[in-house]
Amino acid sequence: MPNETTPNETMDPEVIRGFLNVSPFQTWLGLTLADVREDGVDIAMPYREELLSNPTARTIHGGILATLIDLTGLYSVLATTTPVTATVDLRVDYHRPALPGPVVAKGTIIKLGRRLSSAETRVFSGGKLVASGRGVYLGASA
Amino acid sequence: MPNETTPNETMDPEVIRGFLNVSPFQTWLGLTLADVREDGVDIAMPYREELLSNPTARTIHGGILATLIDLTGLYSVLATTTPVTATVDLRVDYHRPALPGPVVAKGTIIKLGRRLSSAETRVFSGGKLVASGRGVYLGASA
Amino acid sequence: MPNETTPNETMDPEVIRGFLNVSPFQTWLGLTLADVREDGVDIAMPYREELLSNPTARTIHGGILATLIDLTGLYSVLATTTPVTATVDLRVDYHRPALPGPVVAKGTIIKLGRRLSSAETRVFSGGKLVASGRGVYLGASA
Amino acid sequence: MPNETTPNETMDPEVIRGFLNVSPFQTWLGLTLADVREDGVDIAMPYREELLSNPTARTIHGGILATLIDLTGLYSVLATTTPVTATVDLRVDYHRPALPGPVVAKGTIIKLGRRLSSAETRVFSGGKLVASGRGVYLGASA
Repeated sequence: MPNETTPNETMDPEVIRGFLNVSPFQTWLGLTLADVREDGVDIAMPYREELLSNPTARTIHGGILATLIDLTGLYSVLATTTPVTATVDLRVDYHRPALPGPVVAKGTIIKLGRRLSSAETRVFSGGKLVASGRGVYLGASA
Repeated sequence: MPNETTPNETMDPEVIRGFLNVSPFQTWLGLTLADVREDGVDIAMPYREELLSNPTARTIHGGILATLIDLTGLYSVLATTTPVTATVDLRVDYHRPALPGPVVAKGTIIKLGRRLSSAETRVFSGGKLVASGRGVYLGASA
Repeated sequence: MPNETTPNETMDPEVIRGFLNVSPFQTWLGLTLADVREDGVDIAMPYREELLSNPTARTIHGGILATLIDLTGLYSVLATTTPVTATVDLRVDYHRPALPGPVVAKGTIIKLGRRLSSAETRVFSGGKLVASGRGVYLGASA
Repeated sequence: MPNETTPNETMDPEVIRGFLNVSPFQTWLGLTLADVREDGVDIAMPYREELLSNPTARTIHGGILATLIDLTGLYSVLATTTPVTATVDLRVDYHRPALPGPVVAKGTIIKLGRRLSSAETRVFSGGKLVASGRGVYLGASA
């Protein structure tokens, strides 16, 4: 059984990039892997008009921010070579409107496990924390 | 102070449709208002290839399902003419993979309030529950 | 593999009562099994002074309501003879203050699975919904 | 309007202790204020037999850990002199069983606001992370 709490390996960033871009929705979002740390990854998203929730207030849709929290946590776990097969659940807190411009999501592992892992992600836009949250991720089938 | 628990009005469906389609992201998703009940609304989403998370397993991205839970709860509250200015937080449970095909999200109000309201949404694909969750929504500014 | 969505058995209420009262904290709370339905259980809690959060406002502590949501969901899953070994996570929405008096928690299964199950619980005090939420529960070890 | 993101004051620890011990449930738990930092507080709980969930596995009840996450986040916000009137919602992840012995909950503010604030708490037992989670807290009435 692998050590459940300390990642002892980090996946090659090119391999993570490959996983990130295999998803049609993630490709549509134009996501890029901005950083790989020992305890998580950063993912960057460029702005595009279709991301807007409200064309008058010009704020990015909360569902897009939830998407970033889900996948940044998942890739943070995967980057430690811990198997991840699905998201079990997701929790998102919205702190401020996300205005047009690039967005960065910074993931941090909370707990790695063979069956279940959890990670937390903070989403920044214009240098400010706009949303944050957590996901629980299911490991490999027994 | 309005009655906090029993909606005494339902918004004209055409007005709700107008709000639903003003959002560029929601327009991109092709959302339609499928039903307006006294205690919530149903929102339908057609399938499109860009929604996929994984082109091999052909499952719809969890962020898309989170988006549906966020907005279906929000429109369920708004449909009672309760003011809603933003989502405070969102919680999503993923139950099964959502396969290619139309998706329906069914929202139900849990609690209406002047300052905070909450609603629950269940998302169905192929007749099965694929995800469910809740949002808390902020009312009008004081 | 058992059917994942439809409980085909209900545990003997006396067996559930035995599990409920084996826990020192649950015994201290004086919990009783009020009802066993096919899709969940109801658990009742008498009032005692030590449950108060605030002796002036005389409201029951939110942690007590969270406890009821955790365990009522867990016993709702267990009552279908689905194995449960631990709570994975818990989400609680607080709707109104819970005033001194008996409290009833009504659990409903959302999804039964061999590895993970989820249930929702609504907590009533004085006939009103005071809190509600969900738990995800871990099944038997592989 | 106060600065929403940077606490510019810290409440006198004796005042926080007074709030902590005014609650009958918190007094029963024997809670003490272990530390006051600029961005949060630490709260310690001694072990007592009635906290057990399972007398055979000898693990502390998840509802007790949820209680600690709720109140440590709340006092973390309150310690900055930001008004807090109630918990809006609570999310708890359980990472490992909490064995008999003292427990420490470490709260950190995520976002301070006039209407809504959020904080995160990590709970340690025997030097290990046993649970973690977040609360959203309601500010003063308008």
